[in-house]
Amino acid sequence: MTTPADPDPQPAGPPTRRRPGGRTARVRAQVLDAVRAELGEHGYDGLTVESVAARAGVHRATVYRRWGDVGGLLADVLDAAGDDDWRPPDTASLEDDLTALNQEIQDAMSARPSVMAALIAASFRSEKAAEAQQRLWEDRYTRCEIVVARAVARGELPPRTDARRLLIAATAPLYHQLVLLRTPPDPHLPRSAARTAALAGAAGAFTEPPPSGP
Amino acid sequence: MTTPADPDPQPAGPPTRRRPGGRTARVRAQVLDAVRAELGEHGYDGLTVESVAARAGVHRATVYRRWGDVGGLLADVLDAAGDDDWRPPDTASLEDDLTALNQEIQDAMSARPSVMAALIAASFRSEKAAEAQQRLWEDRYTRCEIVVARAVARGELPPRTDARRLLIAATAPLYHQLVLLRTPPDPHLPRSAARTAALAGAAGAFTEPPPSGP
Repeated sequence: MTTPADPDPQPAGPPTRRRPGGRTARVRAQVLDAVRAELGEHGYDGLTVESVAARAGVHRATVYRRWGDVGGLLADVLDAAGDDDWRPPDTASLEDDLTALNQEIQDAMSARPSVMAALIAASFRSEKAAEAQQRLWEDRYTRCEIVVARAVARGELPPRTDARRLLIAATAPLYHQLVLLRTPPDPHLPRSAARTAALAGAAGAFTEPPPSGP
Repeated sequence: MTTPADPDPQPAGPPTRRRPGGRTARVRAQVLDAVRAELGEHGYDGLTVESVAARAGVHRATVYRRWGDVGGLLADVLDAAGDDDWRPPDTASLEDDLTALNQEIQDAMSARPSVMAALIAASFRSEKAAEAQQRLWEDRYTRCEIVVARAVARGELPPRTDARRLLIAATAPLYHQLVLLRTPPDPHLPRSAARTAALAGAAGAFTEPPPSGP
């Protein structure tokens, strides 16, 4: 659900009469494309302002001035990834919505190269990237809350179900296995984790307030 | 549950008649203590063979010869952490066992400095550390399978419950929030995540074979 997308298509309009922001937006798109490509091919260690500038066909002074350093480039890629119109799946079933969401995560993490996996790894190297990664996840989980609200409205979940806790429970096993345990993608896991969260949610595991004792 | 422990107490016996392995074991303990201390204080970027050797009071040639590089040092700290007699909690209740397990994880991750958090971060920097981290997790999850077996024996879970899937579901939200989302520790989360996994397990979410379709 956090697949980076290009937020900067070239502005429409006749090339002889660009809007003032056109060149700036075009340079940003070229540079962020180059960051994603370099990151996917070489990982964080191969990522330099120089290699990004060369690949983007942009003067490196421009990159330094606008992005500062590699951390600034990574943060902008992550911020750009959140600047899209992504919406969570709507299949009319909580388990199926969560399964489709998990499948998106697993597909993005399993791509070769996976820009998403490289960005998560980079967030352990750069504080700016870590903060941008947090902003992106916060935005994605907020957008997904509608999945829970729809399930409550359909009667699949009790009222006052805590959407965020349910969404974390549904998606955390994917991230844990793929990012931390580094196990190969399990084709059953997207549905299994979704079903677990849906079952627990239906049984009241995420109704507020959170449990405080035995 | 992966709190690094010192596996190398100084061998007992009169100091004038050490066993042949005594000095080797003592040097290892000193060096690994130094790695943990440097890692906790300065993180991966401040960790060098030189700083570890100086802190341990060991010649740096000894460290290079035995551990090779920083990755080798980190891998040995992780391998040493698994070389203990840790056992999972046994409270006679699945939810309480999993809650106590999660509390151990949260406490280790929230310590300041947290060697565990620093080791996880380092696993994104060093392939050797990543492999050792995987071995440690694999060992810890295997040791925890008894928690599920006992719950099945008590009738809290259906027979043929997949222990690993249940344990991942119970612990993944902790790791996801603390390591990836980098949210402050939530005092309710250890029990909340445990209860979710226990509820889903009782409802049959982890009985084999895994679900394969809607």
